[in-house]
Amino acid sequence: MTAIDLNADLGEGFGRWRLTDDERLLSVVTSANVACGFHAGDAATMRRVCELAATRGVRIGAQVSYRDLAGFGRRAMDVPPAELMAEVAYQIGALEVFARAAGTRVSYVKPHGALYNRVVHDEEQAGAVVDGVLLADATLPVLGLPGSRLLELAAKAGLPTVTEAFADRAYTEHGTLVPRDREGAVVTDPDAVVARSVRMARFGEVDADSGARIQVRARSLCLHGDTPGAVDLARRIRERLQRSGVRVEAFA
Amino acid sequence: MTAIDLNADLGEGFGRWRLTDDERLLSVVTSANVACGFHAGDAATMRRVCELAATRGVRIGAQVSYRDLAGFGRRAMDVPPAELMAEVAYQIGALEVFARAAGTRVSYVKPHGALYNRVVHDEEQAGAVVDGVLLADATLPVLGLPGSRLLELAAKAGLPTVTEAFADRAYTEHGTLVPRDREGAVVTDPDAVVARSVRMARFGEVDADSGARIQVRARSLCLHGDTPGAVDLARRIRERLQRSGVRVEAFA
Amino acid sequence: MTAIDLNADLGEGFGRWRLTDDERLLSVVTSANVACGFHAGDAATMRRVCELAATRGVRIGAQVSYRDLAGFGRRAMDVPPAELMAEVAYQIGALEVFARAAGTRVSYVKPHGALYNRVVHDEEQAGAVVDGVLLADATLPVLGLPGSRLLELAAKAGLPTVTEAFADRAYTEHGTLVPRDREGAVVTDPDAVVARSVRMARFGEVDADSGARIQVRARSLCLHGDTPGAVDLARRIRERLQRSGVRVEAFA
Amino acid sequence: MTAIDLNADLGEGFGRWRLTDDERLLSVVTSANVACGFHAGDAATMRRVCELAATRGVRIGAQVSYRDLAGFGRRAMDVPPAELMAEVAYQIGALEVFARAAGTRVSYVKPHGALYNRVVHDEEQAGAVVDGVLLADATLPVLGLPGSRLLELAAKAGLPTVTEAFADRAYTEHGTLVPRDREGAVVTDPDAVVARSVRMARFGEVDADSGARIQVRARSLCLHGDTPGAVDLARRIRERLQRSGVRVEAFA
Repeated sequence: MTAIDLNADLGEGFGRWRLTDDERLLSVVTSANVACGFHAGDAATMRRVCELAATRGVRIGAQVSYRDLAGFGRRAMDVPPAELMAEVAYQIGALEVFARAAGTRVSYVKPHGALYNRVVHDEEQAGAVVDGVLLADATLPVLGLPGSRLLELAAKAGLPTVTEAFADRAYTEHGTLVPRDREGAVVTDPDAVVARSVRMARFGEVDADSGARIQVRARSLCLHGDTPGAVDLARRIRERLQRSGVRVEAFA
Repeated sequence: MTAIDLNADLGEGFGRWRLTDDERLLSVVTSANVACGFHAGDAATMRRVCELAATRGVRIGAQVSYRDLAGFGRRAMDVPPAELMAEVAYQIGALEVFARAAGTRVSYVKPHGALYNRVVHDEEQAGAVVDGVLLADATLPVLGLPGSRLLELAAKAGLPTVTEAFADRAYTEHGTLVPRDREGAVVTDPDAVVARSVRMARFGEVDADSGARIQVRARSLCLHGDTPGAVDLARRIRERLQRSGVRVEAFA
Repeated sequence: MTAIDLNADLGEGFGRWRLTDDERLLSVVTSANVACGFHAGDAATMRRVCELAATRGVRIGAQVSYRDLAGFGRRAMDVPPAELMAEVAYQIGALEVFARAAGTRVSYVKPHGALYNRVVHDEEQAGAVVDGVLLADATLPVLGLPGSRLLELAAKAGLPTVTEAFADRAYTEHGTLVPRDREGAVVTDPDAVVARSVRMARFGEVDADSGARIQVRARSLCLHGDTPGAVDLARRIRERLQRSGVRVEAFA
Repeated sequence: MTAIDLNADLGEGFGRWRLTDDERLLSVVTSANVACGFHAGDAATMRRVCELAATRGVRIGAQVSYRDLAGFGRRAMDVPPAELMAEVAYQIGALEVFARAAGTRVSYVKPHGALYNRVVHDEEQAGAVVDGVLLADATLPVLGLPGSRLLELAAKAGLPTVTEAFADRAYTEHGTLVPRDREGAVVTDPDAVVARSVRMARFGEVDADSGARIQVRARSLCLHGDTPGAVDLARRIRERLQRSGVRVEAFA
């Protein structure tokens, strides 16, 4: 029986501002990518999300980012590797305090936004992220795109790696994501998102934007929680996966 | 034989800016109060200082602060206790990553600047700092002013407490520091600073600004490292303490 | 015929985060307190709000604040006067660029959050705000609480002053606001808020929390825009004011 | 008789941190590139530098930057053009307040660090900087590298443009700067820097790193002020220029 993890970004508010419906999302996902203060996520929010996640048995991951509150971590930055490495470790360490206080641990690392996209191809920054994880905890799994430089370098460094697919993003024939600024980059029809999710989880395949069938092997499925209706859609995906005989559970 | 710890603020640069002569100070002090990113201290600097400190056998402490880079943590802020607690824990956790990576641990916590002054009297904020330490690690010693609310509440919560005196600050008859904006608040004559240091360490006493002799019991002596000549003065103090039969060593 | 200005805080998002429904609020108010980047308000948002306000003939005011994104400017800070003065001027200048680009000007200054509360009583900070306004533009009106140190010092310095009342805040017998942490501080019944608004605008009076009738003379009425239903309530207040024979228009 | 402007970066501290020797540099240069708070430069420092510059008759320019205090604006960022444009205008507006308060005006705009390098080639960001200047003041000269996209687009938009050369940077045969991470990128011998400066100012030529003589036409010469000995070197350059019959004066 196939098993799939469901991950989503959480705690992406900052001070007075809220973005993600953390409480409801935590009743759906099995892994919570918690913002660590660099693109979002103040300390009190980090603490609250960790407590909620621990109570519900949801795994806590460090969603590490460029230092960019004004841009929500969505603007690529040429951060020198030594700085990036240290900033990644800093964020993991800060989150670890709240995970431990909630009786659990940080269980994986996933880069956010522009950093996520950059380390698909950028050797230097991918290496810096891996070095940052090693600095913090040399046993932490890294969650990312199959075939990315990040996962390659993480594996080479001895870190466990976990692949993910995106429920609502269009893919090219080469298995990469259609860039956000291109039309059709995001699948907006809820039924289509649900159907794609089940197909990816069960058969490891999806239709590319060209119509061709491609393979998308993933141990985790990334859901989005920052749009209206997102939580309801996430819940539907989870239910349909389970009714299709897919076991929804965190990766080991 | 009396033992005294020497502590100083380190790593108080930020990005392009440097302030403290970390390398030289680390050859003098036994405890390093490392800035954790809220008033100073970027991640790469924190990492570097922890490595240097570990190499030289200097203890690493978390110098926690208000979130205030523009004010260097010197402007009192009415931070609600739940936020302050979480921010204190966040900073300790971030530093812990670099201490561990350097083969050691964060060994104590000392508030910085305006927060340090505030928790001498402010029940609510002192309690929040204690709660933040407990959240991060319920065995961490807290370094502060004798008689402060901070040390009282830390002790009540079961945390080890360590008292400190200031080598170059004037005291009132009541054993409190003469406020910085009053004349004579800082002792500027190097010979006087050395003499006071030795007297405080050996006999636990000092002359108050009124001329009266008062008791200042302290297990640690705070030296300053951000002024010209500061490191040379620190070295003189250390040497004179040792020649006077005082054992210079970190608190247990 | 009595005239009343309606002011509200606008542009209080930051980057990815939104808070105020700027577009709809701008169809109700006559004066827009635009966040200037210190507690909220990125540059692109400031530009957009200024353009919208100018298009609709709404006055633009600089909503100046402590530098505190994490606390949304709601945490009092002991900022030295020379720094506070410069920060106030900085914010006014930054907003002025967008007001001018939209074909208008910054027409008044109103402190935000903790700074607003502080300058009711704090001589030093009130003076620093006034000095900051003078530095930026010695003809700018200052909007604040009647009887506040801010308005007294502004008037003494030759700046025009404008008094405001709060539609949904309870008052003490002394004409001050009931502190937010006390029960009943905010009037939540929409009908009561509408009725109070009309009474304050027409007769300059309101019932204090003790039940006593007090005078609240104000040329402007502050509406809130950051809660659900806030814009609808604001619209109702405006309509009822107009039907009651009150002229809704910006102060001169 | 040839005229040359001498420009340098000023006010590049932040809060507690100082970097540039503003006071002494202002006795040498004719144009001050004042940091506007995004990579350095708090409001109080901006005010102080503007006052000093005005007193000495030194022109004030807005040294606009990416929003990146931690990286001192030296890390390239993919800021969307609408944001970058607004951020450039914001910085100019903030500085204008202090320039006016000092009895003068912002007289030109010069991008800083990574933004400076980026707009040499990047069409989109160069356009955004130009749009930001137009938004703030459509008469402001733009200071930059000859042949840069920035100056091309600024000229096309009707903005005055001013070219600059670097006293202590090596040039390639193509007239571009040798990248900082390559050996020999910075000319460190003071005598060589002085000689190059005079030759560039008088004859518009310099030896490239290949040894070939190239043309470097510039109305302004950029001096550096953030290294030990920098001010003394700047003074020597100024004196030698004057003794060589070059008129040291700001561009019109």
